[in-house]
Amino acid sequence: MPPSHDPISTLGSSLGKKVIIKCKRHKTFTGVLKSFNTHLNVLLENVSFTFFERNPEEDNALEEKSEKFNRIVLRGDSIVFIGLK
Amino acid sequence: MPPSHDPISTLGSSLGKKVIIKCKRHKTFTGVLKSFNTHLNVLLENVSFTFFERNPEEDNALEEKSEKFNRIVLRGDSIVFIGLK
Amino acid sequence: MPPSHDPISTLGSSLGKKVIIKCKRHKTFTGVLKSFNTHLNVLLENVSFTFFERNPEEDNALEEKSEKFNRIVLRGDSIVFIGLK
Amino acid sequence: MPPSHDPISTLGSSLGKKVIIKCKRHKTFTGVLKSFNTHLNVLLENVSFTFFERNPEEDNALEEKSEKFNRIVLRGDSIVFIGLK
Amino acid sequence: MPPSHDPISTLGSSLGKKVIIKCKRHKTFTGVLKSFNTHLNVLLENVSFTFFERNPEEDNALEEKSEKFNRIVLRGDSIVFIGLK
Amino acid sequence: MPPSHDPISTLGSSLGKKVIIKCKRHKTFTGVLKSFNTHLNVLLENVSFTFFERNPEEDNALEEKSEKFNRIVLRGDSIVFIGLK
Amino acid sequence: MPPSHDPISTLGSSLGKKVIIKCKRHKTFTGVLKSFNTHLNVLLENVSFTFFERNPEEDNALEEKSEKFNRIVLRGDSIVFIGLK
Repeated sequence: MPPSHDPISTLGSSLGKKVIIKCKRHKTFTGVLKSFNTHLNVLLENVSFTFFERNPEEDNALEEKSEKFNRIVLRGDSIVFIGLK
Repeated sequence: MPPSHDPISTLGSSLGKKVIIKCKRHKTFTGVLKSFNTHLNVLLENVSFTFFERNPEEDNALEEKSEKFNRIVLRGDSIVFIGLK
Repeated sequence: MPPSHDPISTLGSSLGKKVIIKCKRHKTFTGVLKSFNTHLNVLLENVSFTFFERNPEEDNALEEKSEKFNRIVLRGDSIVFIGLK
Repeated sequence: MPPSHDPISTLGSSLGKKVIIKCKRHKTFTGVLKSFNTHLNVLLENVSFTFFERNPEEDNALEEKSEKFNRIVLRGDSIVFIGLK
Repeated sequence: MPPSHDPISTLGSSLGKKVIIKCKRHKTFTGVLKSFNTHLNVLLENVSFTFFERNPEEDNALEEKSEKFNRIVLRGDSIVFIGLK
Repeated sequence: MPPSHDPISTLGSSLGKKVIIKCKRHKTFTGVLKSFNTHLNVLLENVSFTFFERNPEEDNALEEKSEKFNRIVLRGDSIVFIGLK
Repeated sequence: MPPSHDPISTLGSSLGKKVIIKCKRHKTFTGVLKSFNTHLNVLLENVSFTFFERNPEEDNALEEKSEKFNRIVLRGDSIVFIGLK
């Protein structure tokens, strides 16, 4: 392997900063990165979570929704990418 | 790796407390976190489980349903994230 | 890791008792838990299995079906959660 | 872990006997279990395989089909459960 | 584990013989088995490959297609089962 | 194994250069390759991300969208291929 | 295991030659095989990539498209099979 830094260790410089995380199926999380591990499991704080959901009461229309969380542990398996400042 | 705590060990401070767990395919669990392991398998108590299901008797209309369980062992593979207080 | 019991070992107290197992794609199994391993593969007895299937002879209508089995070995990979009494 | 037998080793008592194997996407195999390994890969003999397939010549109607095989090696990854007598 | 032969080693007796391999999404391969490994990756010769594909020029109608290959290396991950004579 | 270079180490010659990365579900990333590891996790800079999304306000019409990011950590699991100059 | 060559090492005799690679979801790559590893990650040169994509501007009609690349690193996970001359 070439003398290249591990991409995941790059996340260390974003600890305490706001990141945006795009997951499978159009789930998006924004929040402050508090910790992570090599599997890309992450701890986020002050999280805004947006996603799409069908609404059974509106003829299953697709609706964009948003929820807030103080802290979440997000599994790396769900993540497509993490956007850094 | 930077000196960052493992995100999963953060769950230790939520033992005995209520958490919300969002899984694939819009399955949501709320309950008291009793234990967990490194694969994010978790034991929950006093669980409320909500999900969507098509109803064959109503022209396959999508319906939101809810079930209660005293205790469940939830596989980490199904989990997208765990929301902590 | 915190001093938390492994969630899977909790299943030991349910050996010989009835459990409900929810799997992917709305498959549900109820039966007596006879054994399990760390991958959450389980042996169930006196099993009732309910699932949904499209019926080609009824315009592919979705139908809820049920089958009985004396004993099954269920793969952990298919499991979302195991509900305990 | 509790003193529980491994669920997969239970299959040993079904060697030489007829089993039913339900796989993902409504594929079903019945046959005589000749061997297996820890990944739940199995060797079956005198196999009947039933499945659903869309028929391009009949407006893509879903059809239940059946095929016979003398012997098959079935991958454990495809299996949901194995029903024993 | 019981004194059962590994199902995959059974493929050894089919080396040089014609096999049929059913994969995910209704892909089927027939050909002469030349080699295999424990992951069920296989080398086939004189291969006939049949599959279904939507045809954009025919209103996306589902069509059964067939292709010939002298030799292919097929990944075990794609395989559901291998039928032996 | 034959005396073949590892395909992933080939990426070393593209460090600091623009690459195009095609991921599952028609997600495409173009940017400057800053680092990578054996799992094909990559760090990209000056990233343009294009994808398709259904628009709930336009009858769920499929829309091509584009977003810019200064830096992203992209998980190898999502990647189909990386195109090099 | 029987005295069978590993199927993947067979690719060694195709280094420098044209191969066709069929991936999941009807993606096809043709190009010259430059290197590979045990995970079936491959380096291809002079690549023609064909795939199907819905066109939002044409009522989401399915369209066959083709793109050229000088060199790509293709992940083994995406591959169904590699056709050799």
